[in-house]
Amino acid sequence: MTIVQSTVYEPLTEQKATALAVRLGLFRDGAPLVCREIGDGNLNLVFHIVDQETKQGVIIKQALPYAKVVGESWPLTLKRAVIESNALRTFASFVPQYVPNVYYSDESLAITVMEDLSHLQIARKGLIEGKTYPLLSRHIGEFIAKTAFYTSDFGMNQQEKKKLAQSFVNPELCKITEDLVFTDPFFDHDTNNFEDELRPDVETLWNDDRLRLEAAKLKRKFLTEADVLLHGDLHTGSIFASTDETKVIDPEFAFYGPIGFDLGQFFANLLLNALSRPEFERQPLFDHIDRTWDVFASIFSELWRTKSIETYAATPGLLDDVLRHAFVDAVGFAGCEVIRRTIGLAHVADLDGIEQKEARLAAKRHALRLGRRLIVERNELTGTDGFRRVFAETE
Amino acid sequence: MTIVQSTVYEPLTEQKATALAVRLGLFRDGAPLVCREIGDGNLNLVFHIVDQETKQGVIIKQALPYAKVVGESWPLTLKRAVIESNALRTFASFVPQYVPNVYYSDESLAITVMEDLSHLQIARKGLIEGKTYPLLSRHIGEFIAKTAFYTSDFGMNQQEKKKLAQSFVNPELCKITEDLVFTDPFFDHDTNNFEDELRPDVETLWNDDRLRLEAAKLKRKFLTEADVLLHGDLHTGSIFASTDETKVIDPEFAFYGPIGFDLGQFFANLLLNALSRPEFERQPLFDHIDRTWDVFASIFSELWRTKSIETYAATPGLLDDVLRHAFVDAVGFAGCEVIRRTIGLAHVADLDGIEQKEARLAAKRHALRLGRRLIVERNELTGTDGFRRVFAETE
Repeated sequence: MTIVQSTVYEPLTEQKATALAVRLGLFRDGAPLVCREIGDGNLNLVFHIVDQETKQGVIIKQALPYAKVVGESWPLTLKRAVIESNALRTFASFVPQYVPNVYYSDESLAITVMEDLSHLQIARKGLIEGKTYPLLSRHIGEFIAKTAFYTSDFGMNQQEKKKLAQSFVNPELCKITEDLVFTDPFFDHDTNNFEDELRPDVETLWNDDRLRLEAAKLKRKFLTEADVLLHGDLHTGSIFASTDETKVIDPEFAFYGPIGFDLGQFFANLLLNALSRPEFERQPLFDHIDRTWDVFASIFSELWRTKSIETYAATPGLLDDVLRHAFVDAVGFAGCEVIRRTIGLAHVADLDGIEQKEARLAAKRHALRLGRRLIVERNELTGTDGFRRVFAETE
Repeated sequence: MTIVQSTVYEPLTEQKATALAVRLGLFRDGAPLVCREIGDGNLNLVFHIVDQETKQGVIIKQALPYAKVVGESWPLTLKRAVIESNALRTFASFVPQYVPNVYYSDESLAITVMEDLSHLQIARKGLIEGKTYPLLSRHIGEFIAKTAFYTSDFGMNQQEKKKLAQSFVNPELCKITEDLVFTDPFFDHDTNNFEDELRPDVETLWNDDRLRLEAAKLKRKFLTEADVLLHGDLHTGSIFASTDETKVIDPEFAFYGPIGFDLGQFFANLLLNALSRPEFERQPLFDHIDRTWDVFASIFSELWRTKSIETYAATPGLLDDVLRHAFVDAVGFAGCEVIRRTIGLAHVADLDGIEQKEARLAAKRHALRLGRRLIVERNELTGTDGFRRVFAETE
């Protein structure tokens, strides 16, 4: 691979991105290349460069030194590009089939050059269109099980784990989650964003001391439990999918956190999609939740039995305890995600895209009741069937 | 302060240590200095340099690049000297009255130059002599409350906290605790060390699945909960004391861990001393445990109410939940410490120093029963009174 030395950050242009791809030797000489910037412009530039003859492409993702998440720019560390490429490489060492191949990264330019996945579709978009992606949950269950196990104190040398966790300390991106997922939606904070009609429902949430206490406990877990390397933002918009392939992208929020967090985010985004569908089309979403958990628990357990380096691994009851806590936490984290995607700063197209206003408001009210129940009753759910039950009871 | 550049590690001699103190300007010119190496030679060199006229002294502590903890040398990072001096400085920013003043540190020489505390006595030694140190628990309770609160997500900026935790990642020293406190004593491991007469009692422990499961959960907390900056080895041998002064030394095990850990280690070492005393002399130890907790909980709560930066701090029930978990964990950690100091690699003079063999064995059997009950029943103890009760019930 060609070595490209860069020492000063500058935002790439389509021309410079193409030149970089050529310098890196990613295309044959003289290939007719076309480059388009396809990012949303809020956090990153994303260049899609394609050889017009072979149709082969690459992606160059470049972090911008600011974010537009709250309407105006705020400075945001470029180090997240390093976190992202390191996370993709770490995940690839366990589940190469579920992440894009990283060809090159450059810390000073804050870029990651990686596999073009444009033959796939963002799962959120497909789910909104009514697709079901039959293998999605099997793949995500395996992705979470393997990345969690092999980065945990059970699956890797416990001293190396501490150093790996040290390299993924990610204060700025974690703060976004701490604020937008775990805090602001539970208080009358100006980042919140919801229809006026929902105000009575939202104020009921804000005055719910029991809910607030449980949300606080979940936030504390997120702040303190350095359990496994998480993707950190595993919603359906961070997943490319087709009927037979699944690729997890955008792990710039990666950090060491509680094992249930990625599971909870994923569950929540399946629930958010279910909330947007008529009842008779919801079954595939609940089936996905069941299968994600079953595949996760089954693979994690098998790895535990065969690959654990922890002396206590064979202790009767320990694996059950770890899985039980992962599940309970996942239910609670899912509740936080459902609520914040309904009334917080960053919504999802699944709910916001419901055209008929009364139906949209009804779905959002349902979301708030569902999220609340998942948070406060997380210890009472005995399995993924509980999602179906609580979903129905809060309709 | 004079700047002393050193780039290559070499163990100091008494002569070189004296020369360093002079170069640092810690003594007046021409002072008649006497230097003695007073360390135990296992992990560190400790030079005590005294001006024979003024009787003023300093301590130069130098980490050795090996440890003799298991009978033979094993390599051990010199970075622990940096951890130690940084921890002392961090603690000093909250409770300067309870740590030695650090005058100088040098990373390449692995040295910390600090206040001479030889007018005080190691608390373990004094307690064994029957001293009671009336202010010991008040001071340690305040030390733990303030260092814990101000390094937690409630007492400091949550992004700065992550960076502080990153600077205290301490794999090698944590491994010693993970092995010697949380693992080896619960398995038939060759680091264990106990009288042959105790073998039946020890084997009962090793065959106790419930105990092993609970010890495993406590170990996992130690491995994963990055809650507050801990001293990491807060036994009575890490505390200098007199009737009116208390100084915490030797924080080379410092790292971000569960809030109950330092409390538990301290409780356990008070219990180990109580185990070595006749019943009528135990009361001061239990009083110390009560007061440590009461002072800790009271100061921590006051700081929480007046200084917390966490939006959720005012949520009803949250402080109680944090304190309750700190207490339950402390009880469990205390149980692990009592057991490992009885049958593990590193014993305490409190128990080993009981001259009459049958009395010593009886005290150690009591210790094993006490430690076990604290671990498995930690959730049932409602307050520090529980230590008295379980102590009496396991006699």
